[in-house]
Amino acid sequence: MDRRHFLNTSLMLGASALFPRAVMAATTGGFYPEVRKAAEANRAADIKRIQDWIALPSIAAENLNMPEGAQYMKALALDAGFDSAEIIPTDGHPGVYAVMDNGAPRTLAVYFMYDVKQFDPAEWSSPPLAGKIVDKPGFGRAIVGRGAVNQKGPEATFLAALHAMRDAGVKPPVNILLVAEGEEEIASPHFQQIVQRPDIMQALKGSEGIFIPASWQDINGGVNVNLGSKGVVELELVASGESWGRGPAADIHSSYKAMVDSPAWRLVQALQSLVTADGNTPAIEGWFENVRPLSAREKELIAEAARSGSEAARKEQLGVARWIDDLPYQQALERLASQPTVNIEGLVAGYTGPGGKTILPGRATAKLDLRLVPNQTRREAETKLRAHLDKRGFSDIEIVVGGGYDPTETAESSAIIQAQLATYRRAGVNATLNPRLAGSWPGAMFTAPPLSLPAGHFGLGHGSGAHAPNEYYVVDSTNPRVAGITDATLGYVDLLYQVAAIG
Amino acid sequence: MDRRHFLNTSLMLGASALFPRAVMAATTGGFYPEVRKAAEANRAADIKRIQDWIALPSIAAENLNMPEGAQYMKALALDAGFDSAEIIPTDGHPGVYAVMDNGAPRTLAVYFMYDVKQFDPAEWSSPPLAGKIVDKPGFGRAIVGRGAVNQKGPEATFLAALHAMRDAGVKPPVNILLVAEGEEEIASPHFQQIVQRPDIMQALKGSEGIFIPASWQDINGGVNVNLGSKGVVELELVASGESWGRGPAADIHSSYKAMVDSPAWRLVQALQSLVTADGNTPAIEGWFENVRPLSAREKELIAEAARSGSEAARKEQLGVARWIDDLPYQQALERLASQPTVNIEGLVAGYTGPGGKTILPGRATAKLDLRLVPNQTRREAETKLRAHLDKRGFSDIEIVVGGGYDPTETAESSAIIQAQLATYRRAGVNATLNPRLAGSWPGAMFTAPPLSLPAGHFGLGHGSGAHAPNEYYVVDSTNPRVAGITDATLGYVDLLYQVAAIG
Repeated sequence: MDRRHFLNTSLMLGASALFPRAVMAATTGGFYPEVRKAAEANRAADIKRIQDWIALPSIAAENLNMPEGAQYMKALALDAGFDSAEIIPTDGHPGVYAVMDNGAPRTLAVYFMYDVKQFDPAEWSSPPLAGKIVDKPGFGRAIVGRGAVNQKGPEATFLAALHAMRDAGVKPPVNILLVAEGEEEIASPHFQQIVQRPDIMQALKGSEGIFIPASWQDINGGVNVNLGSKGVVELELVASGESWGRGPAADIHSSYKAMVDSPAWRLVQALQSLVTADGNTPAIEGWFENVRPLSAREKELIAEAARSGSEAARKEQLGVARWIDDLPYQQALERLASQPTVNIEGLVAGYTGPGGKTILPGRATAKLDLRLVPNQTRREAETKLRAHLDKRGFSDIEIVVGGGYDPTETAESSAIIQAQLATYRRAGVNATLNPRLAGSWPGAMFTAPPLSLPAGHFGLGHGSGAHAPNEYYVVDSTNPRVAGITDATLGYVDLLYQVAAIG
Repeated sequence: MDRRHFLNTSLMLGASALFPRAVMAATTGGFYPEVRKAAEANRAADIKRIQDWIALPSIAAENLNMPEGAQYMKALALDAGFDSAEIIPTDGHPGVYAVMDNGAPRTLAVYFMYDVKQFDPAEWSSPPLAGKIVDKPGFGRAIVGRGAVNQKGPEATFLAALHAMRDAGVKPPVNILLVAEGEEEIASPHFQQIVQRPDIMQALKGSEGIFIPASWQDINGGVNVNLGSKGVVELELVASGESWGRGPAADIHSSYKAMVDSPAWRLVQALQSLVTADGNTPAIEGWFENVRPLSAREKELIAEAARSGSEAARKEQLGVARWIDDLPYQQALERLASQPTVNIEGLVAGYTGPGGKTILPGRATAKLDLRLVPNQTRREAETKLRAHLDKRGFSDIEIVVGGGYDPTETAESSAIIQAQLATYRRAGVNATLNPRLAGSWPGAMFTAPPLSLPAGHFGLGHGSGAHAPNEYYVVDSTNPRVAGITDATLGYVDLLYQVAAIG
């Protein structure tokens, strides 16, 4: 019995817990045979679409290919069948707004980013813009490139769903709005100018909610359905002789430390006041004032995640031997969901090359990200950090905010969450409700007033390495529990139907 | 009366406090007219020797041009008339040992370094290896390049003195030993292997002492005669998930901070335990145990320096508005001479580029230099730092020592100091005795047992910007109080005679 025959037999026998991919094929394929056929025919073009997009990296922090990236995003939307696509200027880099009116009673919105994280080609095993296809043991063949999983792969797969439906002569069962920005990786400083343009806001308000494509199936095929995410403030703390009025204006010979103050030591002193001695709990004054503890339902969901997830696999994936305070997994996951953090992304002062250089630096910088939980707000965080530093005499320490988002929350009962759960269930995929993603995305732009929309992540498939070297996105799955690009495409098709159908 | 006539008149009238350069010309020129003539004839070649040497940067920290640098040093010595010059291998980069036996009763040793500090061409106003000649207001025309003042300019000027004497048919009145290394800028980790080679040690022990060429005349022509210098330990403190057994082995997404420990925060906590809250006084346990307070004579010398020096000029030169604790100048100078320091040269962790990057770094490094005063030792400092960290639970923090020196002291009554003072006096240069240089040099290799030699800095002329961009060395002085290259050359000639003559 060869593999194909075996799969066909499974199909005829119906769902099998041992072979969820057969199930997935049965459901998505079974409901939309013409669309699946079109998706299969488009497979090479769908892969090439991702590779071509990766070849044009837009990096807001480096002002690299920003107008080009917006143009490309617009062209991709029109190519996928959107009726209109418009470049939306902002005070920063432009976004894109596209509309596909299918004459349907319901509208679904989707959020795209066309920018990617910075990268250092020296750290990659294949060129980060080449989109080379390599084997990823346990998963299958994957495109390697900057933006592969975050977010060009999943986004292009959503576009592939629209291509497949059009090619199959099937009109999507919902209207679709696309809002895209090019500043996600610098914390979306101007995205509000896009979503709050009156006509765009009006259109979004009429939608069932908004989602961001994702490809987060784990090696066992499981996915999380996130009911929210932490907020974030990205910022630099800068100590300098210039603003302090002590220490040198520029780097001087280190022997003068005996009579000259040091901005680098000042930064260290300011920094250490921000957290407890173990570095794990924010110690900024009033930080926990508005922190909402986990609800009973949230704790229940986390306990379930701890039971069903593999702690060992997660530790290995992260290269971590023990959690904070040697917590058991469930409590570590509670901490992950519930606790605000003050993280050092980077430290830069003085001489940073190999060996040493005997200087007393005139300037020292710490790059921080502050993760926020409901009901903290970004504005509150910035205000409290400033007040904390001022009160301790560090009013000379500059806070340079790069950007940030408020935390987001979406009700478990919302149409978009229920449609996600239904789609995963129909695909035979084990979906775990996650009370809160510890990462951040500009979802608060949608979930907070004035829009107050449900918002979440959705997608089949797998990729990993966001922000890291050798980022990848699986296109050809050899893991029966994980979707390749065609099944992931069909997953988006089914989501549209579930949104159209939801009660 | 034109300028030349005026100077000649001055010469005839003898020393004039108003025109020290005239005095300088009178003394050095007056005593060695044939040598001065040769030095003047060699002027272009002497300048080109510096420029050519600058064009070959040897940087031990980058393993750049090290064998080439040693070969070049050897060739320069032979070219200047040393009878022999030998490349001395070490466990690190090689040194050079050269001997000039003039059949004289006394021997003087000179210490050279052929390496230079790292540099970033982007920070320079002219290419750092081009040795371009530019105007330096207040001083004259100067060679700009890495190593111009530290130490190729002054060293090549000493060689110019030997060239001039040979060209004038004058045999130097002392025998000369040259010891050179290529690892000064990484704190001389293998220099002991050179100076303690039995035959070299034997030869050095027979000398009157050793000096390093310098060109530290200030804008008023004044120089310091240093009676010692601080010691130093250069090191990196490294916190990593790997050695800690907590936190990530490599950079991970920053959202995990809520459940994963941070090596960067650990480094900050360890760092802040090393100094008082103002960052100005070492707080390492037992650090002051062997610190010898300033003697009455040392305080007297510092008081004199405070009275005669310009505090405002020094503040401006350093870009510093106030000294530590707003100390008056004299107390600031006492602090400079007497206090050990823990300085941050650099901080490097995680993402160091523009903007932010949401990672939790697996590793964080602080580059420190610890300046030591008598009777601290480098070994004591390293041991106490380790013990301090261990006692506070930071035994995982690695200490990677790049190199270091013990502090040095040379008696005011020693022949080499007295010869320096005599030479400066004869040149009409105001020489201030400085109890201790706050910078460091491998002088302890000479002053400590087994050699126990007097050691110091000597030289006329001016340069600045050691370790900084646009380092320069004045070759053509327009400041009547400051020596250009020819007067500086004659200064070295006179030093040899003063050493030969001293009581």
